Amino acid sequence: MIMMEDIIKEAYIESIKNIRKGDKEEEVKKIQEKIKKAKKIIVATNNQKKFKVIKDIMLKVCNAQIKMIDIDTKFADLTRMPALYKGLLALDTEKADIYISRGRLGVPGSGSMLVILDEKGRILTASLSPSSVIHKENIEKRIKDELIEALKRIGISIN
Amino acid sequence: MIMMEDIIKEAYIESIKNIRKGDKEEEVKKIQEKIKKAKKIIVATNNQKKFKVIKDIMLKVCNAQIKMIDIDTKFADLTRMPALYKGLLALDTEKADIYISRGRLGVPGSGSMLVILDEKGRILTASLSPSSVIHKENIEKRIKDELIEALKRIGISIN
Amino acid sequence: MIMMEDIIKEAYIESIKNIRKGDKEEEVKKIQEKIKKAKKIIVATNNQKKFKVIKDIMLKVCNAQIKMIDIDTKFADLTRMPALYKGLLALDTEKADIYISRGRLGVPGSGSMLVILDEKGRILTASLSPSSVIHKENIEKRIKDELIEALKRIGISIN
Amino acid sequence: MIMMEDIIKEAYIESIKNIRKGDKEEEVKKIQEKIKKAKKIIVATNNQKKFKVIKDIMLKVCNAQIKMIDIDTKFADLTRMPALYKGLLALDTEKADIYISRGRLGVPGSGSMLVILDEKGRILTASLSPSSVIHKENIEKRIKDELIEALKRIGISIN
Repeated sequence: MIMMEDIIKEAYIESIKNIRKGDKEEEVKKIQEKIKKAKKIIVATNNQKKFKVIKDIMLKVCNAQIKMIDIDTKFADLTRMPALYKGLLALDTEKADIYISRGRLGVPGSGSMLVILDEKGRILTASLSPSSVIHKENIEKRIKDELIEALKRIGISIN
Repeated sequence: MIMMEDIIKEAYIESIKNIRKGDKEEEVKKIQEKIKKAKKIIVATNNQKKFKVIKDIMLKVCNAQIKMIDIDTKFADLTRMPALYKGLLALDTEKADIYISRGRLGVPGSGSMLVILDEKGRILTASLSPSSVIHKENIEKRIKDELIEALKRIGISIN
Repeated sequence: MIMMEDIIKEAYIESIKNIRKGDKEEEVKKIQEKIKKAKKIIVATNNQKKFKVIKDIMLKVCNAQIKMIDIDTKFADLTRMPALYKGLLALDTEKADIYISRGRLGVPGSGSMLVILDEKGRILTASLSPSSVIHKENIEKRIKDELIEALKRIGISIN
Repeated sequence: MIMMEDIIKEAYIESIKNIRKGDKEEEVKKIQEKIKKAKKIIVATNNQKKFKVIKDIMLKVCNAQIKMIDIDTKFADLTRMPALYKGLLALDTEKADIYISRGRLGVPGSGSMLVILDEKGRILTASLSPSSVIHKENIEKRIKDELIEALKRIGISIN
């Protein structure tokens, strides 16, 4: 099985040679495989309800042990990309195959992002929601839609 | 007029005190204002067609001088977040109020991201598209939809 | 006066063309100038003693208003580069010409870093100290030496 | 054997509780252990001479397979932290226990940095050199001194 490292190297070399033409099917397949074959997933939230929404969906995709992070993630809100830094907080404090985090995209007011990282912290997929000021909606419903969207955009459909 | 720096500081202090409740209207208004009042915008692309799509939409939102970057941006494809690093490449080589960039979200196969940065490189808004393998569509149409979506999610509507 | 943006652009183009030969005198001069001509400096520490050490040295280099950040910076310790993220915390919450921060370099145990950022968060210079476990020394003495070293390596000498 | 993830988690919790008192001996020992027990090391340079200098020193510290990266690393010079991004380029394209990279610290003119990353891209140690404009010296000699210094500051001495 070809490693993610080799796929990335090939894509980088294409970029250097100026022959890169956009995502390739084998690249998307590799992302799907990493998610589907995950044995351990860490969800970077401290909220039991949000955790349950994510866990229930992921269990339809893979057969993994799914755990909630046990460190307060709110400190990631003092960074430039809170959602991403929650994921990195999980990456640095837990061993897992996949890390899922959700939080603010950028500056206060910029809405939210859900992001899925691999075991080295590489971004596999993500999705965005409007600022809650713009689009008020039940938070669990929103997270559910975000995760389904993040998976759909790399070709994983949830029924 | 309250500065972005003060709005961010207030939000950070709320997070530290554990009383933060999500985006606030004045935060979203500030983001809108920064985009609408921009006097100079740099678009981090080397593609004249993509540039024109972005310029035409932005001219409906603000009265800015809009320029294309004159450095090859493909090298950002060798980073972990190509779209974001194209924006930072523009930030570091040009003075402007707003930087707009578009490229791959994360690893090869992860689809695309359009991101709008302010004069310090802070993320104001963004939008995502599926991997082109998943959802084939005319590239100019896609970029147009991405920019309209990025603006819509922070409350700026384009007709 | 040539802008930092133009100097960076020229260096990037040299790298793309594969003709870059290392730092140039005008680049170092530009860094010196940015520090010497700073009108406002933010020091990203909450410690009055550490602040005083830094302020006293910087007043020998420039004629700036020098302020301490008024947000708790310890949350930056939950990031991958605490010293750098303290600086970014200051950058995002205060307007200034120069930001000086000091904290852990990387993982716990990795020793400390002092870093000087410009108004866009670009790294102008830095210095490192061994882990305090390895080399015990008075903290104010250490910070003084770090700042003097950070300035010396880009050609600014303090008597 | 306690994992790096657990050590980081403990340090983060200390920071949250406001009882963190600086680096601890077990943290430094863990960093040493990761370097000494490395089985595979990637050096992120394309220069055979620089590679040899680094390889010869590392072979005194550990019994690892040491390889040079086979992608052009100069594109990292178009990022905000070229030395660090060379390391991340290696991290994303190769599997290894330790990644060693060397390049510019920050903006052009800011001198050089040597940095050692672990298998997840966490910074274990680093060292800095003045801008070559300030302190001209044989490049191999400089890299040798940088690596010895990076190891020394976390308690690994080379004879």
